[in-house]
Amino acid sequence: MQTVVFALPGNENLAGKLASRINAEMGEVTIRQFPDKETYIRIYSDVKGKRVILVCTLNNPDKKLLPLYFLSQTAKALGADCTCLVAPYLAYMRQDKQFKPGEGITSTYFARFISNFADTLFTLDPHLHRLHSISEIYTVPCMVLHAAGLISAWIRDNIERPVLIGPDSESEQWVEAVAKNAGAPFIVLEKVRRGDREVEVTVPQVEKYQEHSPVLVDDIISTARTMIETIGHLKRAGMKPPICIGVHGIFAGNAFEELKAAGAGAIVTTNTICHPTNEIEIADLIASAL
Amino acid sequence: MQTVVFALPGNENLAGKLASRINAEMGEVTIRQFPDKETYIRIYSDVKGKRVILVCTLNNPDKKLLPLYFLSQTAKALGADCTCLVAPYLAYMRQDKQFKPGEGITSTYFARFISNFADTLFTLDPHLHRLHSISEIYTVPCMVLHAAGLISAWIRDNIERPVLIGPDSESEQWVEAVAKNAGAPFIVLEKVRRGDREVEVTVPQVEKYQEHSPVLVDDIISTARTMIETIGHLKRAGMKPPICIGVHGIFAGNAFEELKAAGAGAIVTTNTICHPTNEIEIADLIASAL
Repeated sequence: MQTVVFALPGNENLAGKLASRINAEMGEVTIRQFPDKETYIRIYSDVKGKRVILVCTLNNPDKKLLPLYFLSQTAKALGADCTCLVAPYLAYMRQDKQFKPGEGITSTYFARFISNFADTLFTLDPHLHRLHSISEIYTVPCMVLHAAGLISAWIRDNIERPVLIGPDSESEQWVEAVAKNAGAPFIVLEKVRRGDREVEVTVPQVEKYQEHSPVLVDDIISTARTMIETIGHLKRAGMKPPICIGVHGIFAGNAFEELKAAGAGAIVTTNTICHPTNEIEIADLIASAL
Repeated sequence: MQTVVFALPGNENLAGKLASRINAEMGEVTIRQFPDKETYIRIYSDVKGKRVILVCTLNNPDKKLLPLYFLSQTAKALGADCTCLVAPYLAYMRQDKQFKPGEGITSTYFARFISNFADTLFTLDPHLHRLHSISEIYTVPCMVLHAAGLISAWIRDNIERPVLIGPDSESEQWVEAVAKNAGAPFIVLEKVRRGDREVEVTVPQVEKYQEHSPVLVDDIISTARTMIETIGHLKRAGMKPPICIGVHGIFAGNAFEELKAAGAGAIVTTNTICHPTNEIEIADLIASAL
């Protein structure tokens, strides 16, 4: 089946790379706002009987969903065989249960809405906390890709004498996998309770890694609180300024500036979300899955 | 059945009036954004087995829809018997057909999405152009209310010697109805073709109404282009600065300032959309329908 790739506003770069890598046509479309802020959609490409790929990363999601839904509906109305959503960053993965009575389980509602208009979903490292798979909430087929291999390769190619740092035991598995593929050692910070209220965080085997380049890895850098705290612990232990790597660089508010100010040696992300820190390219990974 | 009224952000004033007029409980809810711009929803009121009214006017619609959908889903998850959307201004009523090939018929897609999560819809003077009824696109029961009576009453109470002005023959029926109820005369501007490209607009019986207060009435003031042009015609005919009345005051971009600068004597709207020009109260009209 022929494929046409459409970029939602802001996703033109990645969409172009995907189209060229899978040898598909780049869709021509106008998506603009009327003076009253309603969205206008017009598809110029022939989509009849074709697979339509919609590329739209979903940070800052609320204002993106209606245009995305409209574009999918327009493609279907014009005879598209199916619409496939490529959302390198998938939103609304945190509120997956009621922490307090009366809370909306937005991850389920969001998944229901998307499953209603997209026939398949491709995404990278969704933030799975309590869920084992996004298929527990998405009712359409989902292809989940992982950036760990790309991050390992980037560390191998760019960092001399790296040591990977896990901020807590929860991150151990992920950090271990990235470290292994990068051919690098890793350590996980330890919390030691000193009293009722006092918790001390220590860096194990700190003497051994004094001359290494510490590398922090996380799936999402949003407020950057965890990384900023971890940098503090490494500093106090006398380690070098760490390289901070995130799959998804959201950088809410002033998070980027604060992370730099806290003493990050470098900040590196994949291009699931456009940001000056994008150094790790995901187009090939997604293209190979498409 | 008991009723709980919830205000989406910005709709607190109208929601409060409605709750008090129909003797319903005002719903307690938190709707806020996380630092990463995802929406958090928490309902504190007991909604189990109750009718839930969601008040959300839909100007600037794209960013409002997801929170509105989430709130409806949360109420349902907490056992609400039904959710009823009160959208005094209803968006996406213009693009109701393909004017050019490939265009998305957004009014249909929007109606489909809303019909998917709201069980009933209450709105005021939706912009019906080619459609005869919004039930052609909304699959849930719709109650359409009309502000004409309120506008007539406002004119009767506030304007001395009014003459209503219809900008073109399309507006004749609506202007005639408002004029009749206001006990006022009305005229409709006439277009006379002077050549292949030249059209002259004239004000009929202009001498008769020189001492009257001209009143322009329209359903939506968006860019205000029509009103601004009409003011120009009235000025050239030597009439007084007209009072401009709109049901829905969108005032896209600088439309409000431009309309004032063009010579509007006064600008008056209903409170379907919050704006300093709101002088005509719709709460009683909606409450009587609820």
